[in-house]
Amino acid sequence: MKATEPSQAGRRGPYAKSADRRRTIVTAAHAVFAARGYRSGSLQEVADRVGMSQTSLLHYFPTKRELLLAVLTWRDSISGDGAVLPDPEESLVDAVIRQARFNEDIPGVIELYTVLCAESVTDDHPGRQFFIDRFARLRISYAEAFMRMAQEGRLRPGVDPQRAAASLIALWDGIQTQWLFAPDSIDMAGSLRDYLRLIILPE
Amino acid sequence: MKATEPSQAGRRGPYAKSADRRRTIVTAAHAVFAARGYRSGSLQEVADRVGMSQTSLLHYFPTKRELLLAVLTWRDSISGDGAVLPDPEESLVDAVIRQARFNEDIPGVIELYTVLCAESVTDDHPGRQFFIDRFARLRISYAEAFMRMAQEGRLRPGVDPQRAAASLIALWDGIQTQWLFAPDSIDMAGSLRDYLRLIILPE
Repeated sequence: MKATEPSQAGRRGPYAKSADRRRTIVTAAHAVFAARGYRSGSLQEVADRVGMSQTSLLHYFPTKRELLLAVLTWRDSISGDGAVLPDPEESLVDAVIRQARFNEDIPGVIELYTVLCAESVTDDHPGRQFFIDRFARLRISYAEAFMRMAQEGRLRPGVDPQRAAASLIALWDGIQTQWLFAPDSIDMAGSLRDYLRLIILPE
Repeated sequence: MKATEPSQAGRRGPYAKSADRRRTIVTAAHAVFAARGYRSGSLQEVADRVGMSQTSLLHYFPTKRELLLAVLTWRDSISGDGAVLPDPEESLVDAVIRQARFNEDIPGVIELYTVLCAESVTDDHPGRQFFIDRFARLRISYAEAFMRMAQEGRLRPGVDPQRAAASLIALWDGIQTQWLFAPDSIDMAGSLRDYLRLIILPE
């Protein structure tokens, strides 16, 4: 993808044009970071992809770190940030399966998540706090869902809601990694469905 | 760690000295790749750590790729390559828990694994085939163990041995990542034990 059509951006005024530019840069940075990681992916490579000088790029994102956080936030907006909030008509199981199937169509987004999340475990990585916060938020969200199920007698006796929340997220991340290496051998939605059927009692 | 004592190496002859040198380099490369990833970690940084010129280092490992593979193989030798082969007296559950507890004492090795595995999902990464082979081997090994249990009537009815094998490995990888971000909140061995207790029937 190159820059947006100037005529279109022009019709919509300078603010829309700037927003379009930012979106274009974030999309390019997403591709560069997914392929090379944050540390190795260069701002120059991002600038080259959007046909912009590095100086112009820095006008939109003053630091590489800010660009990374914009990419991570954009990524969460695409893939629903991992927090599955089903509508009242949809069960948690159905919502997880739906999201897992959706993810099969966006391997590039999953790859970016996998690469940046792992890179961020290192101490001085600018994505570290983002992922610490994200995992903590997700664990609370799923633990609350499992606690509600336990109150309704729908959780298998002996299942700990907090540990099950961490395990579900872990299984999801790990199975995505195996799927990126061997998409034909791995059934992401199947593994998640199996796990949820083990811990949630049939209605 | 710096180079080994020359006097000691001298007593043991040139072969032992060369093996010591290789080990020292691999240990240094392990630290560099764990902290910065393979793409960003430089041979110069590895050479600096062992007090050696880059030219001397290339005498032992002619390419960065060969050094990476040596690090990955060494890492597997430390952490038992993830394939838990219990002795006849030890159950699979006990062996997995034992390995998980052991891993809590080697966060640097877990960090290296996490960073390099994720980096390797990208197409042109030299670690890609290593991880494809490793995951395939591990899935077969655990699937065989679960199939034996199924034949003995010890697997919960409905559990698919192949998918359970992929899920156990995925859970393990994913919970390690969360543990690296929040060691005080995550019980790695607990999550693995919970999962195995869900799929394996009590004796």
